[in-house]
Amino acid sequence: MAVYTDVPEEELKLFVADYAIGAVVSCKGIAEGVENSNYLLRTERGLYILTLYEKRVAPADLPFFLALMDHLAAAGIACPTPLHGRDGVALRRLCGKPAAIVSFLDGMWPRRIQPHHCAGVGGALARLHRAGAGFALTRPNNLSVAGWRTLYEACRARAQEVRPGLAEELAAELTALERAWPGDLPKGVIHADLFPDNVFFQNDAVSGLIDFYFACTDFFAYDLAICLNAWCFEGDGSFNVTKARLLIASYRAARPLEGAELAALPLLARGSALRFLLTRLYDRLHHPPGAFVQPKDPLEYLQKLRFHRGVADPRAYGIDAW
Amino acid sequence: MAVYTDVPEEELKLFVADYAIGAVVSCKGIAEGVENSNYLLRTERGLYILTLYEKRVAPADLPFFLALMDHLAAAGIACPTPLHGRDGVALRRLCGKPAAIVSFLDGMWPRRIQPHHCAGVGGALARLHRAGAGFALTRPNNLSVAGWRTLYEACRARAQEVRPGLAEELAAELTALERAWPGDLPKGVIHADLFPDNVFFQNDAVSGLIDFYFACTDFFAYDLAICLNAWCFEGDGSFNVTKARLLIASYRAARPLEGAELAALPLLARGSALRFLLTRLYDRLHHPPGAFVQPKDPLEYLQKLRFHRGVADPRAYGIDAW
Repeated sequence: MAVYTDVPEEELKLFVADYAIGAVVSCKGIAEGVENSNYLLRTERGLYILTLYEKRVAPADLPFFLALMDHLAAAGIACPTPLHGRDGVALRRLCGKPAAIVSFLDGMWPRRIQPHHCAGVGGALARLHRAGAGFALTRPNNLSVAGWRTLYEACRARAQEVRPGLAEELAAELTALERAWPGDLPKGVIHADLFPDNVFFQNDAVSGLIDFYFACTDFFAYDLAICLNAWCFEGDGSFNVTKARLLIASYRAARPLEGAELAALPLLARGSALRFLLTRLYDRLHHPPGAFVQPKDPLEYLQKLRFHRGVADPRAYGIDAW
Repeated sequence: MAVYTDVPEEELKLFVADYAIGAVVSCKGIAEGVENSNYLLRTERGLYILTLYEKRVAPADLPFFLALMDHLAAAGIACPTPLHGRDGVALRRLCGKPAAIVSFLDGMWPRRIQPHHCAGVGGALARLHRAGAGFALTRPNNLSVAGWRTLYEACRARAQEVRPGLAEELAAELTALERAWPGDLPKGVIHADLFPDNVFFQNDAVSGLIDFYFACTDFFAYDLAICLNAWCFEGDGSFNVTKARLLIASYRAARPLEGAELAALPLLARGSALRFLLTRLYDRLHHPPGAFVQPKDPLEYLQKLRFHRGVADPRAYGIDAW
């Protein structure tokens, strides 16, 4: 939930004049997304999303994200497609900030996850991974294992404010994951944040994937592990193996998983849980008073981490054949 | 900035099926408005605004507001027009709350007020007042003089947290206004909250008025006084008489003001300033920690109140002829 920048009409008119989309008819801030300011822009030609990139997105990464959306859209993925200005440039500036207009996607993200949503997202994720082939740019995943210790150190001293003993548990987990993290799984462009609010459905089918601002180059199976955490746990913390089975099976139907990827899933899921636990913990401890965005609960991910730590065999995720 | 209620897709589909507007294509929370949850709803037929009425709007007042918008739209005012369900009913329920769908209005509210905006809003306000004639329902203005003492009492003990001596100044002001408040000016339906974010412009002309959820039956000139405060002060607190002159002259061109209305303007403007000072003070002192909405500065309105207290002659507002 975020609109950080209020765009005056005059600036907006000048900005939109650089595109061939007609004059501005309406522009309303959208109460979704936490990293950027998003507006639903209506012009004489249609509906678009206008995004102003706020400080949490590194400007140096923006060419990667926009080129990726261009590449994926060209490969048939329903994702926001950057509009290019009359000069061919997609990444522009508005109100002193990097800004872009992207296509509007129909559909709604699911508020209550049903098993068929998990099947849908599994297939969409695999198609996304395949569509990323041939994309020329790379971006390291600074929120994978190499980045966790820095986050941990920034939270260590105050972690007990959130839960007694949390720092010690995180330290042990971090050491274990750093030692065991795989080095050689199939990799490519991953979304890295494919939570339910980033997947639109229409008539029970996936109609679009959004928010590529964590996308990076990493293990495909790590992206799948992120989805296991984001889609397959119930509100009470229990793991829904039916959802996981559907998610993974649908993924495999569109992109086969190697034995090494399947074998690594419990470890990757632990790592993915640690990643969201650490970033949520960081946000909780460094939350400015009065900020609009309510920090999410880090302990939700402690529960998930512990679940995966107890998984000895990937069959626990509903995988029935290697 | 507010979306308080997250509407699941299933409930939304059922809700929209009661209207003849086709199936839901998209629904996004809008980061505007502080009283209700607003969504930009796209269906097969077009764009609409879906509003869920949250606790600050009294359910008993909703029939008045919706009937008023119906009446004004029928009289040619560009305002949100409630859609009626297949059963003829406009006020329905969604997620356990009162809810309505209204028409979408093109245009944007002005972020930087220019003199021509003030001319536009003056004329639009007068046309609104004329269009309200014949509206059968009435609603007392509980945020006018009769309601201020209650607000004051709820703030008195802690007013000095905001400014030393504020309680004493408010007490004196309140007593003076209660004694001098006029009883017999022309009255009818007023908007009562026509701030810049409630007035849309397109191509430099007013394209629509929104947010009728403070509308009530009161002096027309009091509505004009609210606009003087909302549109004619600069960010540094100075009064821009050019803007006031345009606002009042444009109003008078569409609805002549009687001598008694002109003579009462300084007092009504003081009262309007006290009204927003008191409600902002109340919100500041009773602001729940962690709430999304940032309370506005009450002292902005103390400065305006003092300005009007010093106005002996309405000519100070740029009125050149009685």
